[in-house]
Amino acid sequence: VNTSDALARIAAIVGPAGVIAPRDAQPLLRDQRELFRGEAALVVRPASTAECAEVLAVCHAAGLGVVPQGGNTGYCGGATPFDAGRQVLLSLTRMHRIREIDPLGFTMTVEAGVVLAAAQRAAEEAGLLFPLSMGSEGSCQIGGNLSTNAGGLAVLRYGTARDLVLGIEVVLPSGGVLSELKGLRKDNAGYDLRALFLGAEGTLGVITAAVLKLLPRPQVYETAWLAVAGPQAACELVARARRETGDQVSSAEYVSRRSLDLVLERLPEARDPLDVAHEHYLLLEIAATGDPSLVRSRFETVLQAAFEAGEVRDAAIADSGTQRAALWLLRERIPEAERRDGGSIKHDIAVRIGRIPELIERAEAELAPLGAHRLSFYGHIGDGNLHFNLLPPVGVALEAFRERTGGALTRRVYDLTAELGGSFSAEHGVGILKRDELEHYKSPEALRLMRAVKAALDPRGIMNPGKVVG
Amino acid sequence: VNTSDALARIAAIVGPAGVIAPRDAQPLLRDQRELFRGEAALVVRPASTAECAEVLAVCHAAGLGVVPQGGNTGYCGGATPFDAGRQVLLSLTRMHRIREIDPLGFTMTVEAGVVLAAAQRAAEEAGLLFPLSMGSEGSCQIGGNLSTNAGGLAVLRYGTARDLVLGIEVVLPSGGVLSELKGLRKDNAGYDLRALFLGAEGTLGVITAAVLKLLPRPQVYETAWLAVAGPQAACELVARARRETGDQVSSAEYVSRRSLDLVLERLPEARDPLDVAHEHYLLLEIAATGDPSLVRSRFETVLQAAFEAGEVRDAAIADSGTQRAALWLLRERIPEAERRDGGSIKHDIAVRIGRIPELIERAEAELAPLGAHRLSFYGHIGDGNLHFNLLPPVGVALEAFRERTGGALTRRVYDLTAELGGSFSAEHGVGILKRDELEHYKSPEALRLMRAVKAALDPRGIMNPGKVVG
Repeated sequence: VNTSDALARIAAIVGPAGVIAPRDAQPLLRDQRELFRGEAALVVRPASTAECAEVLAVCHAAGLGVVPQGGNTGYCGGATPFDAGRQVLLSLTRMHRIREIDPLGFTMTVEAGVVLAAAQRAAEEAGLLFPLSMGSEGSCQIGGNLSTNAGGLAVLRYGTARDLVLGIEVVLPSGGVLSELKGLRKDNAGYDLRALFLGAEGTLGVITAAVLKLLPRPQVYETAWLAVAGPQAACELVARARRETGDQVSSAEYVSRRSLDLVLERLPEARDPLDVAHEHYLLLEIAATGDPSLVRSRFETVLQAAFEAGEVRDAAIADSGTQRAALWLLRERIPEAERRDGGSIKHDIAVRIGRIPELIERAEAELAPLGAHRLSFYGHIGDGNLHFNLLPPVGVALEAFRERTGGALTRRVYDLTAELGGSFSAEHGVGILKRDELEHYKSPEALRLMRAVKAALDPRGIMNPGKVVG
Repeated sequence: VNTSDALARIAAIVGPAGVIAPRDAQPLLRDQRELFRGEAALVVRPASTAECAEVLAVCHAAGLGVVPQGGNTGYCGGATPFDAGRQVLLSLTRMHRIREIDPLGFTMTVEAGVVLAAAQRAAEEAGLLFPLSMGSEGSCQIGGNLSTNAGGLAVLRYGTARDLVLGIEVVLPSGGVLSELKGLRKDNAGYDLRALFLGAEGTLGVITAAVLKLLPRPQVYETAWLAVAGPQAACELVARARRETGDQVSSAEYVSRRSLDLVLERLPEARDPLDVAHEHYLLLEIAATGDPSLVRSRFETVLQAAFEAGEVRDAAIADSGTQRAALWLLRERIPEAERRDGGSIKHDIAVRIGRIPELIERAEAELAPLGAHRLSFYGHIGDGNLHFNLLPPVGVALEAFRERTGGALTRRVYDLTAELGGSFSAEHGVGILKRDELEHYKSPEALRLMRAVKAALDPRGIMNPGKVVG
């Protein structure tokens, strides 16, 4: 099959409503962070699994690359196509149906293009909770969430995207459809095929639908902004709160003074909830069910014990939804504050929780001699996951900073993380941005196995070429 | 390499303490249910991952099959070798070290041969909980639990074995070692290789160690034995209890009158906790933290609401550990009561929770015309998982029953389960017993993918030959 025939056939499969004209396609060809500017031979939005399957069958026969894309909010360029002649961008945006909600089974069956916030709302309308939650939830899509095994703000309690899936429907590179949408809580009939595609970033197939787990909706949230004695105290406090609340901690977010300062400086609506400045903060939230006054009193008991243990130095507890939002703003809008400041070099790293203090201490000491920079670090300390970001010195543009010292600084951050037994990608994945890191930091056995899986499932290498191990 | 040289080399690798003499090996060559009588060229117990790796390298070079075995408590013959000339039984029993407990990270690193109950105790001694729990916990081992993705009594709250693993160490068929023991909560650096081996029943490699998730230890258990209006009422009640306790339900076990009768008849220590006989029971347990009187009062509020909704007809709530044990005995010892009665044909099936009522109703109606039998069904209704067992009519031996009508009855149970969108193996796996069912009930795409994975990871087919898709 020659390429132009194949492209014409694909356009016919999806119909006029399914083809995005080149001038409208520009936003889809750039990544969220504008690190990459891609190009594609064709940009299509199939309306159904059947159309997806037909498109893939044609691509397979013609050897055309297929780059699946959801809300295009990824941080690693994983959804950007890079070949104007031989790659097709497959946007799942039109597949946004919620197929079913099963309140007795606590499940929801959705198509890949359902926006995360819409999935959350649908669960809420059924009186239940879909707990996946992150800054991009207003535009990221379930298919992308699953393909990148998204993390976010409630992983400590509810797990990552992978943990919230009972089954998926996948269009395979050949155009076949693997349908595993039974929605069973237990199914040990052979290998766990779903797991292959969760976190594979579209390099093994296209996730087109999923059965998601729903959970009972918490009735009461308690949220506190805590000045803590240091990172070690923050880790101890998270463990204490988990033990003493019966694992009701839904979020435990660390914020360094430097990240808070950026927010206070760049966002006029931000206010420091405490009177005195501290170096280290923990945003701690529990999600519970039952009498609100009892939940509050238990939360205060935990904080009191932490105060007496010297872990907490000062605290502001939200007394209303407005106050809760004001506290969350200080954490959630750090990325925006960094952008307004001129942008940052991002590192999404994870170590064992107990090694967070050493990571922070050593990173500060070991980065200092490598070139001028400003630090902004914060993140999901309860998961051992920090966003360890580096800003250029005042007056230096991000691009110049990146070129001059970025490489050495980044290498030190990742080397240090590896020395502490950690990962260079906690939740953002690999995409095209971190391919070299994957090669460098994963063991030869792991890389060999990944390539064996890729070759077995996508022998022609058409799925998201050049990403991860492709 | 010729076979006898290879066997001699393997014996030298593990040393005298690592070779089990033929007459001592007999219990390891039979499966738990005594459905199969196996044979092996050699039975070895390596003492370390390094020895395992050396053994596999020799087997790989010589083309010898390797059958990994843990506590040998499986129900599907998955750990039984079937070739006196060309298969080596690899028992993990000697690898029973708890390598590390990390209380801040809530993890425990253990070797494959650690007995489940020992892992539970080690967690308890650290003030934490390893929640995997099942009847065989006194002899089953972590390696087997992970290789079969074991389920058990606390899946509703804590998930199956797969959900309780952060990482594994695996000896690959070639003798290479994949070490993924970082113990990170989040790690999106490439494909989720762990997932390949969890539930693969030793057909892709040998799990030698794992990092397990630990959880806060609940302080209070509340346990009730409830007479419910029927299976539908039981399902509604589980959903109600999950919603109204903030997901503190740790177990929800259905017991049919017929299973209870078997227990009352066959176990002298069993007592019916209620005055009047009912057809359907639910053993409901919540695990909570906080003031015991508040936990009890919340539990009673849920039961009261269920009573008013007509879901519950009578209830016995445990007031002591002794009473709790007496209630659990009625559920946990059903398999033993069936054995004492002469044994049963077992079906470990799962459907969506909401389809349990239809499954029970149709199974009773559709099995009746196929031949005389007695029913005993019970199980993890909160997971949609029933053990739907068939006993021979009084006076007929199990073997005769199995031969005469067993095939037709089993086929109907599985067909019905499939018609209702369910699985023929919820938690027991495939092994050698359910290979035909796997072929029959899985989709061609799923089977093709499973075979592709098997061929990619174990191209010489040495791992647990003849099991699952091997």
